[in-house]
Amino acid sequence: MNPDVAFPIWSQDRAQRVGAVLERCMPRGDEPPQSLHQAMRYAVLDGGKRVRALLAYAAGEVSGSDPCIVDGPAAAVELIHAYSLIHDDLPCMDDDALRRGKPSCHVAFGEATALLAGDALQAFAFEVLAGANLRDPRAQLPLLARAAGSRGMAGGQALDLANTGTMLRLSELETMHRLKTGALIQAAVRLGADCGRSMGADDNDALDRYASAIGLAFQVVDDVLDVEGTAQSLGKTAGKDAAQRKSTYVSLLGPSAARERAQVLREEARAALGRFGTAARRLGEIADWLTTRSH
Amino acid sequence: MNPDVAFPIWSQDRAQRVGAVLERCMPRGDEPPQSLHQAMRYAVLDGGKRVRALLAYAAGEVSGSDPCIVDGPAAAVELIHAYSLIHDDLPCMDDDALRRGKPSCHVAFGEATALLAGDALQAFAFEVLAGANLRDPRAQLPLLARAAGSRGMAGGQALDLANTGTMLRLSELETMHRLKTGALIQAAVRLGADCGRSMGADDNDALDRYASAIGLAFQVVDDVLDVEGTAQSLGKTAGKDAAQRKSTYVSLLGPSAARERAQVLREEARAALGRFGTAARRLGEIADWLTTRSH
Repeated sequence: MNPDVAFPIWSQDRAQRVGAVLERCMPRGDEPPQSLHQAMRYAVLDGGKRVRALLAYAAGEVSGSDPCIVDGPAAAVELIHAYSLIHDDLPCMDDDALRRGKPSCHVAFGEATALLAGDALQAFAFEVLAGANLRDPRAQLPLLARAAGSRGMAGGQALDLANTGTMLRLSELETMHRLKTGALIQAAVRLGADCGRSMGADDNDALDRYASAIGLAFQVVDDVLDVEGTAQSLGKTAGKDAAQRKSTYVSLLGPSAARERAQVLREEARAALGRFGTAARRLGEIADWLTTRSH
Repeated sequence: MNPDVAFPIWSQDRAQRVGAVLERCMPRGDEPPQSLHQAMRYAVLDGGKRVRALLAYAAGEVSGSDPCIVDGPAAAVELIHAYSLIHDDLPCMDDDALRRGKPSCHVAFGEATALLAGDALQAFAFEVLAGANLRDPRAQLPLLARAAGSRGMAGGQALDLANTGTMLRLSELETMHRLKTGALIQAAVRLGADCGRSMGADDNDALDRYASAIGLAFQVVDDVLDVEGTAQSLGKTAGKDAAQRKSTYVSLLGPSAARERAQVLREEARAALGRFGTAARRLGEIADWLTTRSH
């Protein structure tokens, strides 16, 4: 592919690429236990924006990595993300019947199978990452494990639960989002960048600042879209933050200041990329895309 | 510790050892999110026979490993086991209110926190294993990931679900148990053995035969105890297999033939260890213990 293609072409190519990697590496739906494997495939294949995989590929370009080296980490972060959505939608969590425009996994396959499909996808993510040709598995595997665990995504979900029905301060809201979505986004960027030439500590700091800013920006836009969007445009239930009395950027700041906050975060993200020059073009474009998207 | 101490002393020492490792490495209960970390600790610490950790330490002796090298793998397999029990007890699965003589995790902490605690413990298991000083993380991490995933433990749980209420053939029952409990037991043995000198393919085959036999034997005895035991002796609900109309070794073979089957499997396990001589003493003693236990 011509490296100068426009972002929509590049992102479509990479999204299809990780989709093909996942399609190839996941157990087939006719392999026993069939319902489990079908539920896993249902939750992973043919859906989603593949934001985390795109971030891994884009960060790989910063360190001069070939995309084929990034395939494993890109697939692994998407598997973790897919598992988290299954469990998030379960009746004891957000109890959401709609995901990516389709019935949620537990609606389609039953609650027990959905629970196990999420569990199995998490294990599979580590299997895929451990099987990838990582330069330093002792450093890179803990990156993903920490991002998924109680000091990352799972911890953020626990904070989200604990906070439901209470009005948060902005700093508390951001702490929750840094864990719930930010940790995995940061891991996606770092794992992608680690696929190429070795990065210095300052480079990694800059990538972390970028990831932190777009992670929050992503969430701000999500909150705005939850208020302004429809189930049809979002592919998931709209208005559920208000229905669940959750604090959001919109409830704390109002929609106009929330949109402004997203733009400030976009600028922070772009500023962090300055040191990488044109190698960070795709990371910059992702920041723009995430803060101007309508679904 | 004197290497010739009797098995009860050795096993108590190693169970305490892995308990101390877990106590040290797990997040404290006062670290936010507190309820999540408390639920994780509740499910992992101060409970269980630590069979999988004992197997890892015993297998480490076969390859001449120091126990301190086995600590990471031993803790990791216990973390996976603990997470699986939390999810197994959830209302959408076995819906069991009692575990290790205490209220199940979801009874004590609520369903959502229990779900997340299980999720976070799985991630933490991989963090601990990846952080251990493994000789070949590219080979050893996938061992645990496969054992936990849809072709291992999670797959076995899905088969168990699908089979509830139907009468299985013995071969189908064994297939289910080989995945549901056998896969993690095999991983525990292999990960422990991998901590010492490099094992040959024939050695690994023998260890796999041992693990396969004791994995099934463990389950046969579990089925017998479920019929003959009480909640007090078991620390979990007794008689639930029959209540859930699950096929068991007892329902398929009767209690007397089931006990005989356990003894045949013990002999198979001991025979597989012949090549290792006295270095496999503890593995042999574990086989004896698991097939003669009363809880």
